[in-house]
Amino acid sequence: MAGTVTCEMSTVVEARHQYVGAYGSFYWRRMMSSGSSAVEESTKEGLTEKKEKNSLVSEANKRDSSVVASSYWGISKPKITREDGTEWPWNCFMPWQTYRADLSIDLAKHHVPKTFADKIVYRTVKLLRIPTDLFFQRRYGCRAMMLETVAAVPGMVGGMLLHLRSLRKFQHSGGWIKALLEEAENERMHLMTMVELVKPKWFERLLVLAIQGVFFNAFFVLYLLSPKMAHRFVGYLEEEAIHSYTEFLKDINNGKIENVPAPAIAIDYWRLPKDATLKDVITVIRADEAHHRDVNHFASDIKFQGKKLEEAPAPLGYH
Amino acid sequence: MAGTVTCEMSTVVEARHQYVGAYGSFYWRRMMSSGSSAVEESTKEGLTEKKEKNSLVSEANKRDSSVVASSYWGISKPKITREDGTEWPWNCFMPWQTYRADLSIDLAKHHVPKTFADKIVYRTVKLLRIPTDLFFQRRYGCRAMMLETVAAVPGMVGGMLLHLRSLRKFQHSGGWIKALLEEAENERMHLMTMVELVKPKWFERLLVLAIQGVFFNAFFVLYLLSPKMAHRFVGYLEEEAIHSYTEFLKDINNGKIENVPAPAIAIDYWRLPKDATLKDVITVIRADEAHHRDVNHFASDIKFQGKKLEEAPAPLGYH
Repeated sequence: MAGTVTCEMSTVVEARHQYVGAYGSFYWRRMMSSGSSAVEESTKEGLTEKKEKNSLVSEANKRDSSVVASSYWGISKPKITREDGTEWPWNCFMPWQTYRADLSIDLAKHHVPKTFADKIVYRTVKLLRIPTDLFFQRRYGCRAMMLETVAAVPGMVGGMLLHLRSLRKFQHSGGWIKALLEEAENERMHLMTMVELVKPKWFERLLVLAIQGVFFNAFFVLYLLSPKMAHRFVGYLEEEAIHSYTEFLKDINNGKIENVPAPAIAIDYWRLPKDATLKDVITVIRADEAHHRDVNHFASDIKFQGKKLEEAPAPLGYH
Repeated sequence: MAGTVTCEMSTVVEARHQYVGAYGSFYWRRMMSSGSSAVEESTKEGLTEKKEKNSLVSEANKRDSSVVASSYWGISKPKITREDGTEWPWNCFMPWQTYRADLSIDLAKHHVPKTFADKIVYRTVKLLRIPTDLFFQRRYGCRAMMLETVAAVPGMVGGMLLHLRSLRKFQHSGGWIKALLEEAENERMHLMTMVELVKPKWFERLLVLAIQGVFFNAFFVLYLLSPKMAHRFVGYLEEEAIHSYTEFLKDINNGKIENVPAPAIAIDYWRLPKDATLKDVITVIRADEAHHRDVNHFASDIKFQGKKLEEAPAPLGYH
């Protein structure tokens, strides 16, 4: 299957393959072989694919007969397993999308506000911190759960606006769309993790609803007016997040917060050992936040230099 | 490096490695080794990483001294090469994100509108086609370039709304956020390809600006009111797109449109042979559109069954 053009690529697919069970293999084989038939082989190959497709589909029906449509549209989920053979339970991320946080990152790094704009943004973040501290006190689990619903917004807004701009201007985005959307998804995974540990109360759900309504629109406008200030704002928010997670870890260490076992999703997402605990989870989340701090301050610096984001390479393979 | 947990994963990274030059290797090595240090090793490892990091950063400075900030924030682009050793020129997608379109897909598949809602949507799409045909006549290159600026919007709107919903409800999305954002990115790549062949005129740029303003908001509202109708709408749009690209191919075959060489970006993105032509490009783009047709009709069918999207697995590894 596939010629020299794809030898490296096939390695990646092989790696995926190892997670994918019988039907999954069909699925991937179909993807690849039909891919190569695209340019090299023709009908004969096409026919065998059809067979594979059908067998795949019929098997898929047995699996999720709940959604009959699936078979007609030829869409089905390959059976994906962990290394230990157990079924992969997540749809939101695949084994080959998991990663290990870079714990060597400098947590103390800080951008000293120089310009007037920087100072306004810095003060705003510091001001926003006051009511937050008053509301949550030292309930860091609840705090993390609530604030991640906010933290996952800026990346999505920025990514969307850059996407639309790229379309309007018929211009490349230098990989920044992906980088910002990845940030948003990563923050959402933090939320999916925290919610396994802390269940939101009804008034907290209401609060999140209200805050998202306000924050999404506010950040949307800010990003339209000044991407520089918007990215700086996120950079400073992340600096505060690092601080809060450090406090969280303190309370785990001094026993004020129980160091419960890590949720299953966290163990799979960050590839933590099976016996990982809350402490490990908070440590990797904090490292993620430090990454986002760097990415956003970097983006703001680029803008500050009067450059376009696409003039500097977007951070690659962050996750 | 890394334990049994990561053996498969490291295969993927190795595959990436093959694209990554000296500094790049440092970059990835740092990512991985610090990753494993996360749980297993400690300071000693950490120190050697620091060294790697510094050498990486200093090299990075030499490379993109244009953006000094990069070094401070420890963000740098690894040198990525093609199989033939030439430098990888794209930031918007990496070698391991390229794919080969599934040309075995059924292009004739059509969803017969049954419900009243379906019929409204179908008629709307057919109505929208009339002015479009009048405007473009048989200028299919221009048509493709212009319409891809619209085609890349729904996936982004849907993905964003599902993302925000997931945050508000503290619920998983079943992988649909990613699936829809991937659709948007794929359509944007179609645009980046077409714009290499057809340069937009000033009034076309103005038109795109106006259309995006209207369409983004209209689709946003539609998706809020009825995701079922929104996905059906996209499904039917894609059916029309397949029709248009088929006409495009006819005009290439009968010589009305010159079968020029494929743009470099298309050859890398779809992993086409070096001597690929416009005809190959339009063929793979059409296959992509057929995929999106299936995904969106499928999504609409799920909703029609009164289910939530996350109850059915989102299409995996489409690209």
